[in-house]
Amino acid sequence: MEMRDIDDLPKNAANYMALTPLWFLERAATVHPTRKAVIHGSRTYTWLQTYQRCRRLASALSKRSIGVGSSVAIIAPNVPALYEAHFGIPMSGAVVNTINIRLNASTIAFLLGHSQSTIVIVDQEFFNLAEDALRIMKEKSQSNFRPPLVIVIADGSCNPETLEYALGQGAIEYEKFLESGDPDFAWKPPQDEWQSIALGYTSGTTASPKGVLLHHRGAYLMALSNPIIWEMNEGAVYLWTLPMFHCNGWCFPWTLAAVCGINICLRQVTAKGIYSAIAKYRVTHFCAAPVVLNSIVNASPEDTILPLPHAVRVMTAGAAPPPSVLSGMSQKGFRVTHTYGLSETYGPSTVCAWKPEWDSLPPETQARLNARQGVRYVGLECLDVISTQTGQPVPADGKTIGEIVFRGNIVMKGYLKNPKANEETFANGWFHSGDLGVKNPDGYIEIKDRSKDIIISGGENISSVEVENNLYLHPAVMEASVVARADERWGESPCAFVTLKPGVGKSDEQRLAEDIMKFCRSKMPAYWVPKSVIFGPLPKTATGKIQKHVLRAKAKELGPVRMSKL
Amino acid sequence: MEMRDIDDLPKNAANYMALTPLWFLERAATVHPTRKAVIHGSRTYTWLQTYQRCRRLASALSKRSIGVGSSVAIIAPNVPALYEAHFGIPMSGAVVNTINIRLNASTIAFLLGHSQSTIVIVDQEFFNLAEDALRIMKEKSQSNFRPPLVIVIADGSCNPETLEYALGQGAIEYEKFLESGDPDFAWKPPQDEWQSIALGYTSGTTASPKGVLLHHRGAYLMALSNPIIWEMNEGAVYLWTLPMFHCNGWCFPWTLAAVCGINICLRQVTAKGIYSAIAKYRVTHFCAAPVVLNSIVNASPEDTILPLPHAVRVMTAGAAPPPSVLSGMSQKGFRVTHTYGLSETYGPSTVCAWKPEWDSLPPETQARLNARQGVRYVGLECLDVISTQTGQPVPADGKTIGEIVFRGNIVMKGYLKNPKANEETFANGWFHSGDLGVKNPDGYIEIKDRSKDIIISGGENISSVEVENNLYLHPAVMEASVVARADERWGESPCAFVTLKPGVGKSDEQRLAEDIMKFCRSKMPAYWVPKSVIFGPLPKTATGKIQKHVLRAKAKELGPVRMSKL
Repeated sequence: MEMRDIDDLPKNAANYMALTPLWFLERAATVHPTRKAVIHGSRTYTWLQTYQRCRRLASALSKRSIGVGSSVAIIAPNVPALYEAHFGIPMSGAVVNTINIRLNASTIAFLLGHSQSTIVIVDQEFFNLAEDALRIMKEKSQSNFRPPLVIVIADGSCNPETLEYALGQGAIEYEKFLESGDPDFAWKPPQDEWQSIALGYTSGTTASPKGVLLHHRGAYLMALSNPIIWEMNEGAVYLWTLPMFHCNGWCFPWTLAAVCGINICLRQVTAKGIYSAIAKYRVTHFCAAPVVLNSIVNASPEDTILPLPHAVRVMTAGAAPPPSVLSGMSQKGFRVTHTYGLSETYGPSTVCAWKPEWDSLPPETQARLNARQGVRYVGLECLDVISTQTGQPVPADGKTIGEIVFRGNIVMKGYLKNPKANEETFANGWFHSGDLGVKNPDGYIEIKDRSKDIIISGGENISSVEVENNLYLHPAVMEASVVARADERWGESPCAFVTLKPGVGKSDEQRLAEDIMKFCRSKMPAYWVPKSVIFGPLPKTATGKIQKHVLRAKAKELGPVRMSKL
Repeated sequence: MEMRDIDDLPKNAANYMALTPLWFLERAATVHPTRKAVIHGSRTYTWLQTYQRCRRLASALSKRSIGVGSSVAIIAPNVPALYEAHFGIPMSGAVVNTINIRLNASTIAFLLGHSQSTIVIVDQEFFNLAEDALRIMKEKSQSNFRPPLVIVIADGSCNPETLEYALGQGAIEYEKFLESGDPDFAWKPPQDEWQSIALGYTSGTTASPKGVLLHHRGAYLMALSNPIIWEMNEGAVYLWTLPMFHCNGWCFPWTLAAVCGINICLRQVTAKGIYSAIAKYRVTHFCAAPVVLNSIVNASPEDTILPLPHAVRVMTAGAAPPPSVLSGMSQKGFRVTHTYGLSETYGPSTVCAWKPEWDSLPPETQARLNARQGVRYVGLECLDVISTQTGQPVPADGKTIGEIVFRGNIVMKGYLKNPKANEETFANGWFHSGDLGVKNPDGYIEIKDRSKDIIISGGENISSVEVENNLYLHPAVMEASVVARADERWGESPCAFVTLKPGVGKSDEQRLAEDIMKFCRSKMPAYWVPKSVIFGPLPKTATGKIQKHVLRAKAKELGPVRMSKL
């Protein structure tokens, strides 16, 4: 047989189309036009309304010359406009550039300049921030600055004066902007599934944020992978605790359209707000960083609604969750799926797949097993841990530390305008995560540290994550983060930053610090035990990640641990 | 901004791979190596074992020069080897050509010749059939015939003499063949996701079967779409009632690997066997043609296990299911998902998506709504009903009949070596199904007939399906099929072929026929009422489809309905 017979049928208009999650919205509007799609306070939009609003948005953008190759920025918390931006902006051909609302004006100025966004959509609460950013851009660029068009999202729950001010400054109100668009706009699906759909910037624990470009193909595949990994069935009720601006909410805007579910928006995330939304809307699923889980576990009884009125599934990722937090959640009845990934991998791309044989294990063992980063997502083709020296896979011994690497269709297109970073990150046919971990005998990977977070003491590697996991077991500890502090004798030694649970007396910090160190000595090798324990609130990113670079700076201010202290 | 900045990052080895369902097997073996994958009587294989067996198969095939461009045929009922063929054959680069076990030898000879399969894997029970087919091929091809290598699947539940005979004729035993392969074989994923993965022949209601080619991309997308459409979560227990040789079991071999579920094999499908498998293996899902559902609904009480011990989901497709069968199933506690598709669309590609507002309707109304073919699958981009005259979409009025057409990524690559059929079927950017239907005001499509099944009486179209649906409501009717019979006055009139429920006295067929016609008159327009009612078993294809072409031949033998009969 000639190969061509069986393989040489060409693609045609009927059997090949670019993969894109935009079709999911069109489908949801066709199949369930009257079903609720997005709820925000007293406002509710059906799938048909959402589709029409997105088409209006795409149409209005097109009229302003936005199309393939453009970037539209949006600065907003989890409000309907941000959900709509994930469809409406790509439906115009452009890329949605979601911006973290907790960034400062000068960083936002950098991002807006780098992404060359000619339209900025901003929530009224953050208008001043956007205005400051634009002022900085203007100052820096001198004469040739063409200010972007600013569209402001009004929200009845905010101070009306901020809206009034924004409109006074010439911003167009978002609903007005939608009205200028056609609800029947003939949006064009991408011709090429490799076309970019989203641009998001890494959260800047490093000096210069990198712009992560995602494509339609990957967004489509993640949208179908998420429900399979997470038992998310048609009509799921999803609570938006995870910021949509963070890695496109792990692709859940598109997932919710694929499963025709319900999006419950949430402007501000508190344990009380989560519990009450669960009861009010019969929330079935939400995503949250471990710090949010910690606040749920430690919520005061009057803020909780327990026992839970129905099964609630929680996906957590974004930092290695301490086993104690996982077991606390499961004791409260939440079913926690632990995933791991990066903005560069469309959000979660590994999952600690639960095994039936774990059901009968003690809760602590379950939590320890479930705290691992696990195995690859169904949409990811290859995952491994490779030696930073040889590039070869490390043995599955649970001990040998290497770098966690990814390969497959849910790996980003690359960093925008950053060939050097792309070359490094895609070296040797892998995406290099920069996270260090081990491969366990059961094949589950486990993060030991970010490369830059590892503490090297007397030539030995100390995993800051493992020290933290032990600190979380101490009855007085609410949160803990461990970084390297210079040490005259050992080069580096662990320095613990700790917040205490409500009601713990801080009167004698020295004695408490000693008690914590003593506790650590009973749990870990002596050289792992923090030589410094410092109390106080922890600096966090918008997504709840503890900012270790800030803590490292603090540790530096403290100066080295003296020989005499030994 | 230049377009290139935001869109011009090239694919690289880390972020682009051909989509293929073969990775799902590797993943299942990595994530759940010890979990049961395939159960057949007393034999059980875990996911790791299944993966190793498939790698052995791929390796053994490679040693026999099978690779990209080859086709390997398999003639088998739902046994583990057929499951393995869906992975092992494509892992060698070749195309799996599943052959319907109910075909006759001369048709199989045609298929083997057309597909140019150089290896034939055959279940011992069907060895004689394969042997006859090869003999016919040899006779027809004269001197230049090179017989394919024959591999025979042994099964302890079959007559040992058939195996002995096959081995005596030089066939290689399947397990021996596997042993010649390497369990660690470095299989190569396809370089191009457009590469063919499967070849299956249309069931031959037309004279010359057409070879439907499916590609890796579509098989991957269907594997992810099926669980989302059907609430099929990780660890689902799937009973193989649907033949895997029929349209690759609607892509469920690959779906089961994606969800790490359990495949329960079933050599023969009976209502009793289905009930007992549900109880024994805690089956959660199975697929079946409406005729199988009918046998479940009408099973004698001693063959059933009711009430069902747990929730069981049933997907049905393959013919328009009579509403009475749907309501019968739901009364027994099965949750029926009604889908529709063709071999050319990877199996089901529309679904009658259930709406919450239907929950409160009377069972008959529910069944009638659920009997419609519905809306597009999540993996299909476009579905419509178009006028056979103008090619334009018909209005969503539930009345105007047009052809059901598909467009998207789960439409076949094309027919093998059949450019004329490809040109027709892919005309004007649509895949033309040949099925006639309407679009209802809620957007749900509904089949009225195959183009060739429509009955034209006095210039009016009669949907044979609607007449059948009414016949099924008659208390004595077990199965019904309606075709056109020549009619001296009206050109054509409906002719009903009917089987009766067990226990119904057939002593006076004439009176029963009159009673059925009277019943019909109370339900439908006079010209729809069958002028002839004929009792007896209905001819069926291997997949349980009633062979209307056989019935049409019978109706022809009867001669035209005479004027005097009016």
